[in-house]
Amino acid sequence: MTNDSNYTMPALDKDTGHQVNEYMNTLTKPPGSLGRLEELARNLAEMTSNPFPIVTPPGVIVFAADHGITDEGVSAFPKEVTGQMVKNFLAGGAAINVFSKQISAQFEIVDIGVAADIEGEALISKKVRYGTGNFSKENAMTREEAEKAIEVGFVEAEKLIQKGIKCLILGEMGIGNTTTSSAILAAISGKEVHALVGFGTGIPKDKIIHKQQVIEEALKIRKPNPTDAIDILSKVGGLEIAGMAGAMLAAASNRIPILVDGFICTVAALVAKLINADVANYMIVSHRSVEPGHQTAIKLLEKEPLIDLGLRLGEGSGAAIAFPILQSATLMLKEMATFTSAGVSDKA
Amino acid sequence: MTNDSNYTMPALDKDTGHQVNEYMNTLTKPPGSLGRLEELARNLAEMTSNPFPIVTPPGVIVFAADHGITDEGVSAFPKEVTGQMVKNFLAGGAAINVFSKQISAQFEIVDIGVAADIEGEALISKKVRYGTGNFSKENAMTREEAEKAIEVGFVEAEKLIQKGIKCLILGEMGIGNTTTSSAILAAISGKEVHALVGFGTGIPKDKIIHKQQVIEEALKIRKPNPTDAIDILSKVGGLEIAGMAGAMLAAASNRIPILVDGFICTVAALVAKLINADVANYMIVSHRSVEPGHQTAIKLLEKEPLIDLGLRLGEGSGAAIAFPILQSATLMLKEMATFTSAGVSDKA
Repeated sequence: MTNDSNYTMPALDKDTGHQVNEYMNTLTKPPGSLGRLEELARNLAEMTSNPFPIVTPPGVIVFAADHGITDEGVSAFPKEVTGQMVKNFLAGGAAINVFSKQISAQFEIVDIGVAADIEGEALISKKVRYGTGNFSKENAMTREEAEKAIEVGFVEAEKLIQKGIKCLILGEMGIGNTTTSSAILAAISGKEVHALVGFGTGIPKDKIIHKQQVIEEALKIRKPNPTDAIDILSKVGGLEIAGMAGAMLAAASNRIPILVDGFICTVAALVAKLINADVANYMIVSHRSVEPGHQTAIKLLEKEPLIDLGLRLGEGSGAAIAFPILQSATLMLKEMATFTSAGVSDKA
Repeated sequence: MTNDSNYTMPALDKDTGHQVNEYMNTLTKPPGSLGRLEELARNLAEMTSNPFPIVTPPGVIVFAADHGITDEGVSAFPKEVTGQMVKNFLAGGAAINVFSKQISAQFEIVDIGVAADIEGEALISKKVRYGTGNFSKENAMTREEAEKAIEVGFVEAEKLIQKGIKCLILGEMGIGNTTTSSAILAAISGKEVHALVGFGTGIPKDKIIHKQQVIEEALKIRKPNPTDAIDILSKVGGLEIAGMAGAMLAAASNRIPILVDGFICTVAALVAKLINADVANYMIVSHRSVEPGHQTAIKLLEKEPLIDLGLRLGEGSGAAIAFPILQSATLMLKEMATFTSAGVSDKA
């Protein structure tokens, strides 16, 4: 599953992109005047191989898992919150529920490794293990578990795609996952940990320094191979990050645009890119997070975020908030009149 | 109509804003993690005096008018396009039609001064005059006409508010109106014209220099009083800018949030602010335009745009594209669970 050859990514359809570019210049607006929206329209056409791309309905999959590294006191919230928040997702009370509903998304929540038993009719139970191991003391998981978590993500995304979603948003819930993500990013980027670690969901300065030290020391022991996604995931985690990466591989394989959320999701995108570099062709970064590591992550992904609203919640919330911009880009193509059809004079 | 005392602006309800701030900290998310969205939620609560503010349905009013200054060859498109685009608005083929439909807005198009006779069942005909005078040769209009155009905008907005709209977006159509707006902004800001003038809907470099010179010379002759909105409007125009300003005064008088579009709309906002400074309390700037003068205009308005997508179309299109962000802010308040209601542990 983790070998490049197992994921076939179609190439972007540049011809259709070119066709869309020409067509946009015939619409009743000054050429280029819709800026980034026109670039998005072309990108979406290239991804979907459709001169009138469609992004609705979007699908949102939230992967939830626990992180053994929370034993080291790196988080603002107690570990139990992961499971409690899963119940909140099931009851519809979390931010991502609200924003998913706003954009009429198909919403799914997958338990891919919560450290507690959770029940709920709508819950997709695909627990690979009860949370990761504490990576300052042991490997987060085995290589097989990392591969299995990727596979879970791949399969769940494929299922939603079969149901008809036209754009994929990935979310996560996992107390401690900014620590894991910072470790992954340090491994991939080779950057110093202190330049990547922020205050997560809200920890004081002395705890940030502690969090940095925990990651630095663990990386010295684990020595993850920066070019081997499975090695990185098995050594530092996390299960939900592996699941998100797998889901992205499925989306790209099916020409479904991926609207990438904030820090953790962008790190998952980098993991997916390590598995198959072409997956990045199908990604649009929704927003710029305030988490410092996110700047490094989007640079590595070579993407420019659509919005910058100081968000740092995760769950896929920023992507859901930005989604209507994608919709605007597609509606412009589909519904605007041309100069000829509207009887409007072109440039003097 | 143009005296401060004629427009009563209620003060922002800071108590309700404070209440919303407290409430947001009880919602199932790390405090402050929704960044600008939380600030918006508080602002909207202060504007509407409602701890659960509502912004739907929004209303969009597009004011169309011609500009005599086009005789000086300042525009990329021929003057006839103003009327042709009004027909396009009536037929539903313009960008603002598409984005208004996307956000389920009540849409209205007002002929406040197109230089041609236009008919259409849905058209609101409130022509103050057949376009403005060429302000390089004569005053754009009389003081009475400027006041009448403001009144038209005020009345049309009041009518939409009576119909139940909860947020107001103003758009404009008027070939030549970046020239007029640059002249207004130069008058209000006291800045050099060359720092404010951009390429509008797309004119070559030599035409930009010509456009700058036309404005500079005209301002030397007209000498608009930078603190008198009616003097500025009567001397350089334009009718649609006056209408937008009037509509903003009506919205603020009724505690209706105004989502300000790009360059021309922000200049109209500055005109409204000259008439009554409190109107700015009810404004949110939707996007950062690429038009260079917009940077000066938003600075004078003391607002930070929500999005920055390289837009320069006008019509209210950028505001409509950004509108779902306002909606997200209100839905967060209305629909998210609290830590207590969801049974989620608060911070460790």
